[in-house]
Formats: sequence, structure tokens, C-alpha cells
Amino acid sequence: MASPFDVTVPDLRRRTSLKWHTYPEDVLPAFVAEMDARPLDAVVTAVTGAMLAGDTGYEVGPTSPRGTAYAEAFADFAARQHGWDVPVDRTRMVPDVMLGLVEVLGLLTGPGDGVVVNPPVYPPFRSFVEHAGRHVVDAPLTAAGRLDLDALDRAFVDARAYLLCHPQNPTGTLHTADELRAVGELATRHGVRVVADEIHAPLVVGDEPFVPTTTVIPDAIALHSASKAFNLAGLKAALAVPGPAADELRRMPEIVGHGVSHVASIAHQAAYRHGDAWLADVRAAVRANGDLVAATLAERLPSARWIRPAATYFAWLDVRDTPAVVTSGTDPARLLLETGRLAVNPGPTFGAGGHGHVRLNLATSPRIVADALDRLTTTLGSPA
Amino acid sequence: MASPFDVTVPDLRRRTSLKWHTYPEDVLPAFVAEMDARPLDAVVTAVTGAMLAGDTGYEVGPTSPRGTAYAEAFADFAARQHGWDVPVDRTRMVPDVMLGLVEVLGLLTGPGDGVVVNPPVYPPFRSFVEHAGRHVVDAPLTAAGRLDLDALDRAFVDARAYLLCHPQNPTGTLHTADELRAVGELATRHGVRVVADEIHAPLVVGDEPFVPTTTVIPDAIALHSASKAFNLAGLKAALAVPGPAADELRRMPEIVGHGVSHVASIAHQAAYRHGDAWLADVRAAVRANGDLVAATLAERLPSARWIRPAATYFAWLDVRDTPAVVTSGTDPARLLLETGRLAVNPGPTFGAGGHGHVRLNLATSPRIVADALDRLTTTLGSPA
Ligand SMILES: Cc1ncc(COP(=O)(O)O)c(C=O)c1O
Ligand SMILES: Cc1ncc(COP(=O)(O)O)c(C=O)c1O
Repeated sequence: MASPFDVTVPDLRRRTSLKWHTYPEDVLPAFVAEMDARPLDAVVTAVTGAMLAGDTGYEVGPTSPRGTAYAEAFADFAARQHGWDVPVDRTRMVPDVMLGLVEVLGLLTGPGDGVVVNPPVYPPFRSFVEHAGRHVVDAPLTAAGRLDLDALDRAFVDARAYLLCHPQNPTGTLHTADELRAVGELATRHGVRVVADEIHAPLVVGDEPFVPTTTVIPDAIALHSASKAFNLAGLKAALAVPGPAADELRRMPEIVGHGVSHVASIAHQAAYRHGDAWLADVRAAVRANGDLVAATLAERLPSARWIRPAATYFAWLDVRDTPAVVTSGTDPARLLLETGRLAVNPGPTFGAGGHGHVRLNLATSPRIVADALDRLTTTLGSPA
Repeated sequence: MASPFDVTVPDLRRRTSLKWHTYPEDVLPAFVAEMDARPLDAVVTAVTGAMLAGDTGYEVGPTSPRGTAYAEAFADFAARQHGWDVPVDRTRMVPDVMLGLVEVLGLLTGPGDGVVVNPPVYPPFRSFVEHAGRHVVDAPLTAAGRLDLDALDRAFVDARAYLLCHPQNPTGTLHTADELRAVGELATRHGVRVVADEIHAPLVVGDEPFVPTTTVIPDAIALHSASKAFNLAGLKAALAVPGPAADELRRMPEIVGHGVSHVASIAHQAAYRHGDAWLADVRAAVRANGDLVAATLAERLPSARWIRPAATYFAWLDVRDTPAVVTSGTDPARLLLETGRLAVNPGPTFGAGGHGHVRLNLATSPRIVADALDRLTTTLGSPA
């Protein structure tokens, strides 16, 4: 198998994006959701071709003959990957997942309404909902990283919408069909609408399948993008996909499409059309990196706890009981940065349940993962 | 001079963006603000390099060591082009001009507040302001396409902000330092804040200079982008630039930067750093196309009226008194599309003052301009 993570640190430092340019050179970055992957050839070819042809104008609109090219590429991909029949003609392109979520929430809620989220969760969920003038209602995951139906039942009383992260970032949880069904019933009972961020769906790394939310909750609306699975955060585009009983995307104003990048759309289409093998290699490599984490922690830091993710390329580590954290009482991410020169995402930034946790990025070479684990086990393994 | 518009229709049809894929093949598109230009080599090289290096992660934030790369490239460009000293450290990147305008209006106004615009003006001004929950107050330009101080004085009574289009799309008007000064005094008197969309600033095609709004109105905030002048609508990025007395960008939430495309930023930086000669060729070619319009209208459609633009690559044509419009009473864009198979932007979409006008795109080869003028003069020149 050719690993897409066959990259060297000097190569990575030549990139100019966030991951390798936030901290000094002696700090190993394992924080933000960028992959240290070699790019997918088909994407490079498609974007280079577009640039040479001067094909850098506006993305075609939904009413143009070519207006569903992105949705069609995604639908074919989703059929192969998830056995999902995507309603191409009812989808809408949006500039990126977060702006798409905000626009969808704008259709389903009014100013001041409550929007439920499940911490620990991707931090912008909170800030974007607040910036959009809605208020966040927390329904924390259980200690096992599962949806907590009782907490949701309570939270839904004060809410109009529910922002589901499926798969869940940072825990890597895949919500099951049974869980989604129960959530759907609860939401219907409370008059709450489900909006699912499914950006990590292609990154299934365990044996459980990804169950598309809208196939279980018919009036849900889901957001998809190639940007996470194919490492295209720098070329943003996304697709809103309504369930069979969700009609609101027809009311989404045309101007929402204004923010869509045509070149990003070309890149994502190439990824969806020609990326299955590359993606399979990424998933296998992330799984192998997970084996390395499991073995290393078992051997060198047994006080760390870890539930292996079913999806995403993150390791969400509970290091509360490690010697350094116990003796210092300091946030582990800070210990790791200051002492270990390792940059991870601090657990508390993900909200409730994040205390004493760190998020480690496994989308990199085994050598870099090994280096990160060295720094982590050394720093946290002895009293600080 | 090597014209960047040395392109053929078959080349253009191979592009997949909006301009050449909205109408059937027998329709000549001269509507949307895309250029039929060969791309700037430096942009192609920069984007291709980024793709090959897998440099497709997140744009660095304002606090990172590299966080001002875009602003610096723009500042150097603005110093060369406009003699303008841009306060790099006080700028903020935004996903694109329209989203940037909305975020800036969010800092300066509250829900329901009035925002003044000057029709005829770029149609999204109206729709984005309304989508952001503000209401639009019209202060139409004079018949000569100038700012109307009396109309502004009346409009400012009911407003908190003023969305200035400078240079003005579609008229190509460059507001003078005197006009801007008068506007600034009026705005201060009424407690109205000026927000200037300066995306067309590099496209000066006459003898008047572009005067940056913030150099005359110190508490104004301006939006800039390489996307219009360098034909990068499909790779969106933009910069908010505050005047010396505008402090609000410091309050812009960090998440606004989330939507910025790193690859677009790379493309724009290459354009700003290496695009002066290409841009000069574009401007000269647009000017020459303007000469062709002037000569053709004088000879074949003298009933059309046209004020030559000081900036932008548009011809805003007043064709109210042409035989076809007079006899049919039909919107000229519709006559041109149906009879002439020429797609232009209908004047009425730009708001008050747009009746009987059409916007023609001159950023194309002289041969295509000649074809467009043939269709236009033939269609409008005889009774319909
Ligand atoms: C759950 C989740 N949603 C959204 C995003 C960002 O998507 P976009 O850049 O399209 O807004 C991320 C990025 O890591 C994510 O983890
Ligand atoms: C005046 C004006 N502002 C903004 C835009 C669009 O800019 P962006 O795509 O960065 O939102 C255009 C595009 O033609 C324009 O003419």
C-alpha cells in the first residue's frame, strides 16, 4: 500500500498553511484538522487544468445546465461509500460547511432561538451559532462518547434546532441507526429540527458503517464537503442535502451561492470522482496510526484512557489521571506545548467533558505519530 | 502589447464557469463580471505549486507569524497603484467582499437599521443587506452617474451605514476626493458610517485617479480583493481595510476568518505581487474596447447614450431612445437576448435608474466586442 502520509517534515514545512506555521520550529504540530498527506493526483490535475484554462470565474448556479455537477459527483461518491441515494436536484451548494450550517439554521430558527449541541464538540459550533444570534443549549455526550437521550430530552425543551456532529469531532463517535431514530422521535416530539454536520463521514476507520442522518430522520438537513476527507480546507465548498421531508432549502436565498468558489468546486468534484483509492489508503494509514497509539499508551502511559474512534483521524485522549496532570493540575495541552513541545488541541476548547483531554491529529506519517507519542508519554508520564 | 484577451471562443467554451455555461451556444455572453482573459502566469504557477505541495490547509490567522502575508502583498500593490499607505496590522481577511461587507455592517449597525445604497448599483448590495436583516435606503445617483448629495442627505436621516461602491458598478464612476469629502461630512453629521466596496479599484481605465475612501473619510472601512481585477472570482478572498479612525475591525470575531480560502489567498498574493504588467495590459485592452464601442455606437446607433467609464470593464448603455426599445416598450436586455442572441445584464436589476439601460462586459477580445456590438446595434437599431 502506498501511504498518502509518506511525507517528510521538511516537505511539510514548505507548506504555508496553519498547521506548520503557528508554532516555533521545535514544536511538533498535531493540532488543527489538516492532513500531512500527499495530495490526490486527480485534484492536482483538475485544479492545474482549471488554472491554465483561466477557468476561474463564478460557479454555475443551480438553474444552469451544469448547476448540479458538484451534487452529482457527491451523489455518486455517497452511493459507492455509504449506499446512500442523494436527492441531487434538492441539494444546494454553500460556501463551506460552517456557513452552510448557519444558513440552514437561519431557515429553521429565529433570532434568539436555542440550538442544541453535544459537547465535547468542534468549537466553532458554539461560536457560529452565537454569532448568528441564536443561543447554545448544551446536551453533553455520555462518558462513553454517546448521545445522551435524557440530556437531549431536557435540552430540546428550550430549542428549535439541534446541531448534530456525525461523525462526532473530537470523539470519533459514529451515531448508530438506533440512536438516530431515537433522536428523531425526540426531536419531532419537541418540534426541534435536526441539522447534521457530516463532513467527517468519508473517514470511517472502524468496522461500523456511517448511517446518513437523513435516511433515518426524514426532515433533517445534512452538510457534506470533500474538504476534510481530502484535505481541501484551503479550497472550501460544501453541499446541503435535505431529507425527504425537509423542504426548506427551496427557501434558501440565491445569494448564499454567491460565496461558492468555482475552483474549489472543481477540486472537490475531482476528489469525489477519483479519490476512492486514495481515501482507502488514508483510512488504512489512520487505522495503523491508531494501533501505534494504542500500543504505545498501553506500554508507556497506562493511566491515559482512550476509546478508539469509529471515524475521523483524531485521537481524543483522556489524560486526567496521568502523573503530570495529577501532580500539576495544569491543562495537559499546556504541559505538552511547554514541556513536550507538542501542539495538540486542548480538551476544554471543545466544551463540557473536555477537561483533562487532548485531541491528537493522526493524519500524518507513522514517524511523526511516533515522535508525538514520545513527547506525549514522556511529558505526561512523570510528575510535573 | 500582448493582450490578455487574445482568446478564442472555443477556448472560452472549455471553461466551466458561469459566463459560458448559462445560455445556449448561439447566445454570445456579455453579462456576468468574468473576464475572457488568459490567466496571469504568476497565479497559475503559485496555485499549481501549492497543489503539488499539498499546501491546501487552513489560511494562517492574524496572530500567526505569517498572518499578514495577504495584507502585505495588497499593501505593496496599493502603494504602487494608488500611492496608498495601507495599515497592514489593522486589516482583517474575510472570505470574500460580500461576506466581508456583511460582517462589517454587523459591527456598525443593528438589526433593522437602514443602510444606504446608490442605485444603479451591483444588485447583491440590496439582497445581502436585506438577508442580513437590515433595510435598504436608496439614494440614487444623478443622471450623470455622480453621487447626489441632496439625496444622500435625505437618506442618511433613516440610516446607520452607507454602502459606497467605489468605483461604481455598473456606471464605472470614480468618486472624486471632493465628493468623498462632502460625503464624509454629511455622514458624520448624521452619525452614519461609510463602508466602501473598492473591489474595482485596480481597474482604472480613464485619466482620473482612484482615491481610496479611507484616505478622505478616516472612519470609513474599505473592502478590497484581487478577484475582480485579476479574474479570480472562483478563488475568493478579500481584505477589510479600516481608516485611521475606524476601530471596529478589532471586534470582528475570529470565526469570520474561518471562511477564508488558503489557496485563494495564495492566488491573490501572486496577483498582487506579480500582476502589474498584466493588469496594465488589461486596462489598455478595455480602453481600446471602449474606443470600439464609442465609434460603433456613434456610427450605427446614435440614439444610444453612453458616459465612458473611469473604471471597471463595463459599458453602461442608455438605450431608452433606440428604435427597438421605443417601438416595443420592452426591456432592452430581453430584446437583445431573444432577437440578438446577446446576453447582457438588464439595467433594472441594478435598481432605480436602470430602466432602459444594459450593462455590457468589455473584458474580452476585440473580435467578441465587435460581435456583441453587431448584435446590439442590429437588434436595437430598427423598430422591433
Ligand atoms: C465537524 C466539523 N465541521 C466543519 C468543519 C469545517 O468545515 P468548513 O471548513 O467547510 O466550514 C470541521 C473542520 O475540521 C469539522 O471538524
Ligand atoms: C461592486 C462589487 N462588489 C463585489 C463583487 C463580488 O465580490 P466577491 O465575489 O468577493 O464577494 C463584485 C463582483 O462583480 C462587484 O462588482
